[in-house]
Amino acid sequence: MDNWFIENVAPIFGAGISMEKTKVLYKKRSKFQEIEVFENPVYGRVMTLDGAVMVTTKDEFTYHEMIVHVPMAIKPDAKRVLVIGGGDGGTARELTKYNSIDLIKVVEIDEDVVQVSKDYFSELSIGFEDKRLELIIDDGVKFVANSPDESYDLIIIDSTDPNPESISEGLFNIDFYRNCHKILTPNGAIIIQASNPLLVPGEITSVKKKLDSLFPTSSAYSANVLTYPGGYWLFGIASKSGSLTDADLKHWKQLGIKTKYYNDEIHKASFVLPQYVKNLLNNLQ
Amino acid sequence: MDNWFIENVAPIFGAGISMEKTKVLYKKRSKFQEIEVFENPVYGRVMTLDGAVMVTTKDEFTYHEMIVHVPMAIKPDAKRVLVIGGGDGGTARELTKYNSIDLIKVVEIDEDVVQVSKDYFSELSIGFEDKRLELIIDDGVKFVANSPDESYDLIIIDSTDPNPESISEGLFNIDFYRNCHKILTPNGAIIIQASNPLLVPGEITSVKKKLDSLFPTSSAYSANVLTYPGGYWLFGIASKSGSLTDADLKHWKQLGIKTKYYNDEIHKASFVLPQYVKNLLNNLQ
Repeated sequence: MDNWFIENVAPIFGAGISMEKTKVLYKKRSKFQEIEVFENPVYGRVMTLDGAVMVTTKDEFTYHEMIVHVPMAIKPDAKRVLVIGGGDGGTARELTKYNSIDLIKVVEIDEDVVQVSKDYFSELSIGFEDKRLELIIDDGVKFVANSPDESYDLIIIDSTDPNPESISEGLFNIDFYRNCHKILTPNGAIIIQASNPLLVPGEITSVKKKLDSLFPTSSAYSANVLTYPGGYWLFGIASKSGSLTDADLKHWKQLGIKTKYYNDEIHKASFVLPQYVKNLLNNLQ
Repeated sequence: MDNWFIENVAPIFGAGISMEKTKVLYKKRSKFQEIEVFENPVYGRVMTLDGAVMVTTKDEFTYHEMIVHVPMAIKPDAKRVLVIGGGDGGTARELTKYNSIDLIKVVEIDEDVVQVSKDYFSELSIGFEDKRLELIIDDGVKFVANSPDESYDLIIIDSTDPNPESISEGLFNIDFYRNCHKILTPNGAIIIQASNPLLVPGEITSVKKKLDSLFPTSSAYSANVLTYPGGYWLFGIASKSGSLTDADLKHWKQLGIKTKYYNDEIHKASFVLPQYVKNLLNNLQ
């Protein structure tokens, strides 16, 4: 099985997705991480970072639609959006579907991820071609700490998972959240990808506790991301004001945005969580 | 990676779940299939049939709760329930939680699956200990064809996936469905597990078309089954009469049944499908 990729990264050692590599297109260590691109008969083109699947051409639409359209339906007036991470361009691509957005600032630490996306994932990196997009190659933690005078209506944390050796560790730190809170407008919201609740229950609880300590209202929603561990992924969301549950889904439908996963009913259903996840979040101290 | 299990079975060759086997507890060919039981640090005890994951102690609750409580909330008066397959006992276990049920008949083709469950998965096989349970070792296709005078309020098809070499192939055949229809009571319903819609879109469409040709009303619902391909699973459901959408969830809550995945909100959300699945089912000819 030398030509198989097996995901076996912290904290879920011993179980993960596996894929036959029918062709390796790229494999190189960047300044920050090991980047590989290969082809697979089921998932198409696949990018892995440090041995974890980031995107596949087959199913990337789920994650990118759900990290963008859920908050955009809740905050339809958002004009300035900050994406931390998101170097493949998929999140930016979904944001470009909104004519109402004036600025999409993507802060990606690893310029090689952007280049690899441009070279191998044109359906994702197309997001970078929009005039409203500003790409900054920088550490998101530092960028947010050093930008106290900026202001955004939406901050989307589109990062790899945190673990002690990963470059994303700082993005799950309370200081980072505090600095994000500072540069959000009074009606602003933040969205954070927060792992699988059965395999890594500590991630959504940790995210939720931190959000609750800074924001008056927070929640969690879910999506079926086939190629992430367990195929089921949570997102934490928090807002400085207003309700997270009163999205104007009629307005969203009228925008006529084409999606493959998201729709107005999925929006509501994504906030409905299995009993064990409800229990997990209800028992937060 | 000799000590790793990699799922690589039809029709999804080249991508699947992988698990380290820290200990192999059982490995034997039965009359029908290769049965293996091993231990894994993340998913606990795992049973595979012909190289496909059937159950793990960590996440079996999702599949078994969703194949039972969704139809039982829709058909609260069901007294006689027929389970085709389900030799591990998990589906029976969930059914035993209803005092209102008089008979749970489990028709499993492979007695070795039942024995392995009794030997290694006591939390599943406990379902077999209930007085209302009748276990029949037989081919479900033949059993249903040869039982025209039986009658059931609910038939649950809890089988492995169909493929030309699998013992389950006949369970996805229109003749089998027709024979099931014959032995359902006038208000009866049938439930069929129907794979992952992104990886095997032909399965839910095929199930839905066959159900529509026999029943006045059918639908599809979903659950996040972590260890099945893509982590996202569909179920087809059809009823001889009455609505599939008007479940009395208040009544279900009053029963006080303990669940880890299912709840009244999940019931409704499980019928909400991603846009690509809606498109798939809307375009049926």
